[in-house]
Amino acid sequence: MTFDTAPDRRNTHCVKWDAMEDIYGVSPDEGLAMWVADMEFAAPDPIKQAVQVMVDHGVYGYFGDESRYRAAIQWWMENRHGWKIDPAWIFTTHGLVNGTAMCIDAFTKPGDGVVIFTPVYHAFARVIAAAERQIVECELVNNDGRYEMDFTAYDAQMTGNERMLILCSPHNPGGRVWTRAELQAVAAFAKRHELIIVSDEIHHDLTMPGQTHIPMTHIDGITDRLVMMTATTKTFNIAGSHSGNVIIEDPDLRARFAARMAALGISPNSFGLHMATAAYSPVGAAWVDELRIYLDGNRQVFDAGVNAIPGLKSMPLESTYLAWVDFANTGMNREEFTNRVEQTAKIAANHGPSFGKGGETYLRFNLGAPRSQIEEAVVRLQKAFEDLQ
Amino acid sequence: MTFDTAPDRRNTHCVKWDAMEDIYGVSPDEGLAMWVADMEFAAPDPIKQAVQVMVDHGVYGYFGDESRYRAAIQWWMENRHGWKIDPAWIFTTHGLVNGTAMCIDAFTKPGDGVVIFTPVYHAFARVIAAAERQIVECELVNNDGRYEMDFTAYDAQMTGNERMLILCSPHNPGGRVWTRAELQAVAAFAKRHELIIVSDEIHHDLTMPGQTHIPMTHIDGITDRLVMMTATTKTFNIAGSHSGNVIIEDPDLRARFAARMAALGISPNSFGLHMATAAYSPVGAAWVDELRIYLDGNRQVFDAGVNAIPGLKSMPLESTYLAWVDFANTGMNREEFTNRVEQTAKIAANHGPSFGKGGETYLRFNLGAPRSQIEEAVVRLQKAFEDLQ
Repeated sequence: MTFDTAPDRRNTHCVKWDAMEDIYGVSPDEGLAMWVADMEFAAPDPIKQAVQVMVDHGVYGYFGDESRYRAAIQWWMENRHGWKIDPAWIFTTHGLVNGTAMCIDAFTKPGDGVVIFTPVYHAFARVIAAAERQIVECELVNNDGRYEMDFTAYDAQMTGNERMLILCSPHNPGGRVWTRAELQAVAAFAKRHELIIVSDEIHHDLTMPGQTHIPMTHIDGITDRLVMMTATTKTFNIAGSHSGNVIIEDPDLRARFAARMAALGISPNSFGLHMATAAYSPVGAAWVDELRIYLDGNRQVFDAGVNAIPGLKSMPLESTYLAWVDFANTGMNREEFTNRVEQTAKIAANHGPSFGKGGETYLRFNLGAPRSQIEEAVVRLQKAFEDLQ
Repeated sequence: MTFDTAPDRRNTHCVKWDAMEDIYGVSPDEGLAMWVADMEFAAPDPIKQAVQVMVDHGVYGYFGDESRYRAAIQWWMENRHGWKIDPAWIFTTHGLVNGTAMCIDAFTKPGDGVVIFTPVYHAFARVIAAAERQIVECELVNNDGRYEMDFTAYDAQMTGNERMLILCSPHNPGGRVWTRAELQAVAAFAKRHELIIVSDEIHHDLTMPGQTHIPMTHIDGITDRLVMMTATTKTFNIAGSHSGNVIIEDPDLRARFAARMAALGISPNSFGLHMATAAYSPVGAAWVDELRIYLDGNRQVFDAGVNAIPGLKSMPLESTYLAWVDFANTGMNREEFTNRVEQTAKIAANHGPSFGKGGETYLRFNLGAPRSQIEEAVVRLQKAFEDLQ
């Protein structure tokens, strides 16, 4: 298990490297791809072996009998998150963008308001808008480099047209691991405004050492309004398998979701099923724990280097490998600091405004890469902003 | 390239073998799985190599740049079907059940009628009903062992509530390769009743030697109401990759479909994309042509053996590997002939009624297997019905 080296992903139909020139004007030959949220690391051995077994067998037909797959999910949730689930609660969607979209489709109507806590994962707003629902942006408060919620403000924002909130827990970007008190406040808010809670916990496994993620389902009194979403894709870096889990305990919500799954003919691909079954295992767990330590190291290197640049501030990550850097105090406008990152440092990073209100002065940097790339990024950023020293 | 041997699929999460005991009461140890429409054959080498490249690389992240994938589809449609397409017309869905469901979702409303020509692929009716649309069964006429359409009867059936027809071309089951005149009649019918045509051509590559499939898009005057559906999954036996193509030339229909794809967060898995790019190639084409000859041989062995049993009649296949056998003239009721096939011959075959009106006296047998399995099936069926000799 070493994360210090990584396969070259250029010219492998990898969006992060192969589309960066088109989107950011940063050449993959001399640039660093730090945008799309997948990692540079090879998947752990059990996953590689599972796909190798499929290749060696050679018949890629229809998958049957999900019992081992569901048992693996059940084992992981109980052992890693103290969460007991019934296999019958599990739906498999084509990743969690599809999962989120299916929730919006199943539980809201066109015109309904869907609450998100911004800045937040950009695909939420994209699918809400595409489904012709209203995006309701409740902006997080940056309290000394830590995102917090302000329910007094959010209460005042509500119009009565809202039907759902999508929680990102842990939070992307900014990396918050929400506390029990915060999650209880989210639950109370959802009850006050009669909102269904969709809790996207795709980063639940990628907490920094010492941090403890609390599944939303552990908050009392919300089962009848709660949809949980998890996946192997972020944890094990297998986004290409396009497989996610929507887990619903409440029978009524489950029936409504099942009806839309059937109506839209959604059923999983066999690669995602075989890979997840292999991943959710003790060997997979050991790999994740090594990874978390490595990502913590990356975070420390990146934050130390970036925060040494006057005017730049990297938000302390409690989770995820997605650094969220504020350029507000550089005194530069967005075009200027973005140009320095892209054209001078030759780094492709996500633009803050795509994450919604509150993201205007930020860029998001993906730290899921060998340490050497993080160090190189720091050197480049320090040089690109050296006049601020 | 040999189809005479095939990997053992038992205990590989293969639905065809591993679920047959639960569904049909036929043990995989002594039974023959001839139901689910995938084949026993390993995928061709280019596909195997494409997945091996993925395994050897080890990073299964987000896929980017579909240009080679789309070019491969374009090449295949032009070279194999004389059909010139623009890459911008292509949508990739999670197989064609999802593709069909997305068409229903995009182009009809709850309560609308959707016409199907029965007996036909059972998933059509399933997704129509799940989407709370009305199933309108237009029954095919069996004209001396050949399914034909009766538009005089279908015209009389229409109520004005119908909005779409789903064509299965070539037809499953029964294996008809519809003639140009028949397709023109379908087009005229759709125009008369203002129906959108969804043409599921998933079996378009699997015609028997000498048969020529005509893509529905080659029929004049229907572009503004036509949705074409194709896939690699049936042709190359890679249903597990769960990938299909919905191809729409008309800009208005395309925009409506694109809107629903975005709203439902549908984007493809990387395995399906890499496999399709490899499959739609000259080597893939040569494999398909060998396969077609082999399936024709299977068909001849099966039909000769089955039609020698008094009262049994296998419909001559012009396409597909799905034999459609009528037990009506045995004088037995459905329970009796089904029991003999399942309990005496120990063969799992699809039950006719699941295909809709007209399927009551039939069973569907999958011939996509080594010749030895087909020969064994014939021996077993002859023995199970030997009292009819």
